Amino acid sequence: MDKDFILETETAKHLYHDYAKSLPLVDYHCHISPREIYEDRRFNNLVELWLGGKNPDGTYFGDHYKWRVMRSNGVNEDYITGDKPAYERFLKFVDALQMAIGNPMYHWCNLELRQFFGYDKPLTPENAEEVWNYCNDKLVNDPEMSVRGLIRKAKVAFIGTTDDPVDSLEWHEKIAADTSIEVKVAPSFRPDKAINIDKEGFAEYMTQLAASVGKTKLESVEEVKAALTERLEFFAENGCRASDHGLDYIPYAEYTDIGVESIYSIVMNGGSVSKEDAEKYQTAILMHLGKEYHRLGIAMQLHYSCYRNANERMYRKLGPDTGFDMIAQTDCAVSIAQFLSALDKDGVCPKTILYSLNGVDNDVLGTMLGCFQSDEVPGKIQMGSAWWFMDTKGGMEAQMKSLASLGLLGNFVGMLTDSRSFLSYARHDYFRRIMCNLVGNWVENGEYPANDEALKKIVEGISYTNAMRYFGLN
Amino acid sequence: MDKDFILETETAKHLYHDYAKSLPLVDYHCHISPREIYEDRRFNNLVELWLGGKNPDGTYFGDHYKWRVMRSNGVNEDYITGDKPAYERFLKFVDALQMAIGNPMYHWCNLELRQFFGYDKPLTPENAEEVWNYCNDKLVNDPEMSVRGLIRKAKVAFIGTTDDPVDSLEWHEKIAADTSIEVKVAPSFRPDKAINIDKEGFAEYMTQLAASVGKTKLESVEEVKAALTERLEFFAENGCRASDHGLDYIPYAEYTDIGVESIYSIVMNGGSVSKEDAEKYQTAILMHLGKEYHRLGIAMQLHYSCYRNANERMYRKLGPDTGFDMIAQTDCAVSIAQFLSALDKDGVCPKTILYSLNGVDNDVLGTMLGCFQSDEVPGKIQMGSAWWFMDTKGGMEAQMKSLASLGLLGNFVGMLTDSRSFLSYARHDYFRRIMCNLVGNWVENGEYPANDEALKKIVEGISYTNAMRYFGLN
Amino acid sequence: MDKDFILETETAKHLYHDYAKSLPLVDYHCHISPREIYEDRRFNNLVELWLGGKNPDGTYFGDHYKWRVMRSNGVNEDYITGDKPAYERFLKFVDALQMAIGNPMYHWCNLELRQFFGYDKPLTPENAEEVWNYCNDKLVNDPEMSVRGLIRKAKVAFIGTTDDPVDSLEWHEKIAADTSIEVKVAPSFRPDKAINIDKEGFAEYMTQLAASVGKTKLESVEEVKAALTERLEFFAENGCRASDHGLDYIPYAEYTDIGVESIYSIVMNGGSVSKEDAEKYQTAILMHLGKEYHRLGIAMQLHYSCYRNANERMYRKLGPDTGFDMIAQTDCAVSIAQFLSALDKDGVCPKTILYSLNGVDNDVLGTMLGCFQSDEVPGKIQMGSAWWFMDTKGGMEAQMKSLASLGLLGNFVGMLTDSRSFLSYARHDYFRRIMCNLVGNWVENGEYPANDEALKKIVEGISYTNAMRYFGLN
Repeated sequence: MDKDFILETETAKHLYHDYAKSLPLVDYHCHISPREIYEDRRFNNLVELWLGGKNPDGTYFGDHYKWRVMRSNGVNEDYITGDKPAYERFLKFVDALQMAIGNPMYHWCNLELRQFFGYDKPLTPENAEEVWNYCNDKLVNDPEMSVRGLIRKAKVAFIGTTDDPVDSLEWHEKIAADTSIEVKVAPSFRPDKAINIDKEGFAEYMTQLAASVGKTKLESVEEVKAALTERLEFFAENGCRASDHGLDYIPYAEYTDIGVESIYSIVMNGGSVSKEDAEKYQTAILMHLGKEYHRLGIAMQLHYSCYRNANERMYRKLGPDTGFDMIAQTDCAVSIAQFLSALDKDGVCPKTILYSLNGVDNDVLGTMLGCFQSDEVPGKIQMGSAWWFMDTKGGMEAQMKSLASLGLLGNFVGMLTDSRSFLSYARHDYFRRIMCNLVGNWVENGEYPANDEALKKIVEGISYTNAMRYFGLN
Repeated sequence: MDKDFILETETAKHLYHDYAKSLPLVDYHCHISPREIYEDRRFNNLVELWLGGKNPDGTYFGDHYKWRVMRSNGVNEDYITGDKPAYERFLKFVDALQMAIGNPMYHWCNLELRQFFGYDKPLTPENAEEVWNYCNDKLVNDPEMSVRGLIRKAKVAFIGTTDDPVDSLEWHEKIAADTSIEVKVAPSFRPDKAINIDKEGFAEYMTQLAASVGKTKLESVEEVKAALTERLEFFAENGCRASDHGLDYIPYAEYTDIGVESIYSIVMNGGSVSKEDAEKYQTAILMHLGKEYHRLGIAMQLHYSCYRNANERMYRKLGPDTGFDMIAQTDCAVSIAQFLSALDKDGVCPKTILYSLNGVDNDVLGTMLGCFQSDEVPGKIQMGSAWWFMDTKGGMEAQMKSLASLGLLGNFVGMLTDSRSFLSYARHDYFRRIMCNLVGNWVENGEYPANDEALKKIVEGISYTNAMRYFGLN
Repeated sequence: MDKDFILETETAKHLYHDYAKSLPLVDYHCHISPREIYEDRRFNNLVELWLGGKNPDGTYFGDHYKWRVMRSNGVNEDYITGDKPAYERFLKFVDALQMAIGNPMYHWCNLELRQFFGYDKPLTPENAEEVWNYCNDKLVNDPEMSVRGLIRKAKVAFIGTTDDPVDSLEWHEKIAADTSIEVKVAPSFRPDKAINIDKEGFAEYMTQLAASVGKTKLESVEEVKAALTERLEFFAENGCRASDHGLDYIPYAEYTDIGVESIYSIVMNGGSVSKEDAEKYQTAILMHLGKEYHRLGIAMQLHYSCYRNANERMYRKLGPDTGFDMIAQTDCAVSIAQFLSALDKDGVCPKTILYSLNGVDNDVLGTMLGCFQSDEVPGKIQMGSAWWFMDTKGGMEAQMKSLASLGLLGNFVGMLTDSRSFLSYARHDYFRRIMCNLVGNWVENGEYPANDEALKKIVEGISYTNAMRYFGLN
């Protein structure tokens, strides 16, 4: 895993080292805390940074990707999310990592040690103690190992966090007001709770949404829409460039305004509605939001095909987002197309990025893109970067090959981390290596000419400039 | 993209240059116009040939694959299907093409320039004007650049067009009568409109079908079947070797003759029927046609898993087949198997070629083939060549690997263009290179012995001789 | 196909030759006959061994993989399962095999000739007679070419056969009592017939199950459960390490004990039940068995996504398991997860191996594993080895890449034959070559360090030691 890691050809090395490597990065979708950026948080040791643990409020923080690696090695949960001593937990993780051949976690950890700590040997049980002491010393004593230092080191130009419509954006405002912070940090609008009319807590959330616009109650779907618009405009004023929807599947159901009001009314009065009626309400809200995203130039991200909290026992013990989710099989291609078609028919289809968590949907999405492009921006409809479980070398190659063969790879907006970790910017480097290697192989195999100007444009575009253009960040 | 384009090994080069390259080709499934062959149409410039435009009747002609490439680059529709000047449209296309790394369009265009125009540099914005002038001069002044000249240059031995049962086949008859035309041109029977009882225009089509057999009305399903048989026999007399069915999915529903008559009667009297009843009628017609195909030695092609006209606005503006279709997710493997089983049980299962537009179905089809083979012809049931959106290097490799691992690649009937363009024969060359490369890699990797006689038989078979045998063209 | 067959890199050769090649093998899932082991059966010729034929009772034995190869080459059924002379059948098979480039059958046959007969040229029509005479001579005259000799030659440490709960296990007992037999042979528990309440023969089977526990009738689901437990304990006493379930799909339906008793009663009284009710009964039995497997330390194997007996005519002629099955599309990921979650919630989730016959499910399963691991054993939940139609070089690579990228390849229990043939142990060798090649490529590509100790542990684990640990065979 030296400087030419992943780069199999001379062309790949040239493209990576001369064009991709040094560009800033746009991390337009992640889950890091703006507060930790503002407060320039520091970490006490590698386990706090890598494995996390229990928060004072009983919830858990940390990297559930790593927790899964440990669980798959038969490690007792006490070492994973429990209260075993930090160094013992670290050793258990290092042991498990040796079995992770072919797993991106192996690469990520070692890239993070190299990129952020300057430690360039692979992590093994033999040098685990050395790594532990070396890294903890840096974390505690090196002034550049704070959150902001890590962001600077990774040349992050833009961070798009993930935020609820009711969020006050107080930390975003503080960051914006602090001229010492160079990175641009903006909220992303994630209104899932306003859409999930069929899930617990909907009515309570409506009260919160009402409060966020100075009301006590949202009396109708029209008022819900108005509240969402008001909050979206507030987000846009605070630099929001993208929304995000994390849905089991993308619904599309024909509805009438009157019908949807009735559905809303039933739920707000404690009743329950059929799946079909829930989909009508959801479609109505999504149509409204799509139109508003278009008006405000905000990209719409649609994520789907995840089955969450598969293990009921562990969900009850640890809560959501603790490593018990899986890829689902979801047949909603036609619904997505109908949704985009309905927006397009009214001339209000926003920039859209489509992400399925199931890689077998790549080609379906790859062909859907071409049905809704326009001259608003090249690649207006995008196939999202390989994501979560697909965020692997094979997954990224499959996504890029699918996009390349069915659309224009040259207009791809590229990588995002979707991460809760400030070290995960190393994944942008990983992505750039894989992308340069793929392009390099095509060139050396004679499938694209060695036209350096064209290749530079493609590589720089996917690494950085396409995202800047797409999200209007120039 | 020189003479060894795609060919990575010495074995691949040997197989391609010594066995595959110079063989004639059988294009058993395409959408070109027999009239244009008979009239030996010429083209005024590269845009007319590559991008097409609007017909006098308001419909559009041209290559929607290229239109999608342009749309994905943010090109305004006026340059794609609109009335912007031809050269400006050409430049917009050339620009977009630079972004198409990893896309078969990049290869097709450059192979076409090389194979048909003898222009051997990659097309770029820098040489676009040169290419424009060079190619247009050839198109206008070179006597061999007519439709028939292009066909001769590509060594096309057989062309199977796609024709409606009610078609008079007048152009096929004229071609057959013209001894100056060397290529064999035959109609293929595509009776979708007689099957789509649940789509608009069914009753009107029945009137046309009646007229084609000298009747004013088809009073019953029995009469529909008889009419289809009469037309199929007429097609067979005109050389028809294959039928084609382009269905959303392949239905199979148990039915009775009496029940189906009642369903037909309802629809012909202006009523509508349930999906289940529509499937009963469709199954009855498909069963009848399957039996007739078997009797007449006609291969049955079943295409499915396409979602068409996804963009309603553009469909209304441009009509069908203008680049707004996508791959669907379709679960009809069991229905197809039941359909083939029902035919096989009666001893009337015809030669069948199965094509899903979704590559994730490859292995399902690959295992279905083996359930219905017989000694009528090697590879009686075929997995169709990677098609439309799957007609890419990756798509073809995936299809051939699936077929090879689950059946016998050596009996594959190989490539077809499915195209509306007379330049698209270059795709047979592209396919042969990919196939020889795949076989060459297996040999050089020690996975098949360097037995030249056996390899020659396999490569020549897939390139040419299997299709000649399968379609009875010797 | 020399000693370095499949091994592309120096690292791969080192890993295979120095670590993998000479290890014993654990064939924990197959369909061979314990009686033939005990009686040390011999074969008269290669056709009896490879193609089989008709049993005296009218059923068929032999290798339906090979039959499919012949059918795909247009061979008449008389040569496949019929009564044509053995040598003519052999020649037809050899002919077909030449077309099988890219098919594992090509490799298996040649590996078997090399490994068991010491014949090291590829089988072709030219040397078919030589092979026929050479191999038949060995089969008849070489004392080591009996069933036990073949097992010794392949260094088989453990054989898990597949057995019905009502089986007397008489041959297993005889084998255990015979100290001259070195290989450990144990039954696997396959209770499909006790679960298929919606299939023909259920009530009759209940009578057999009752008899196996000394009853005339099983009056209730409680008695069915008790009978299954009694038989499972008997199997466990005879060394059983695994159960096996071959289901169309894995059901999960909420049920009550009273409701399930009523469903059982209806069926036992000649009635029929809805699919939903059948699923309730099935879930109840599966939950009971899962709990018992956990108690007894028996691994639960779940196989699904096969559509069997697709060709009705041939099914009627030849019966099941004669080469007319295919991969199905099955959406039961959520049901499997719910089933495992329900067991896990009660603390009784057994070791589980998940196998879908459809490779597009790999990543879904790969993510499901991580939701149910525990510290009972590393890799408690396993993604099963590429199986049946997926048991190909590409299929195995896809399965291992999926497992590696989503879990820990290092804990994989590896290969099994699922075979009816005593020569099929060559497939373990094939698997080890493919696995070493995959690992070797990662190492030489810089994706895992050349840490010999770690690599040795991984390679030996997947080849042998993981399965020994997982099935408690040490």
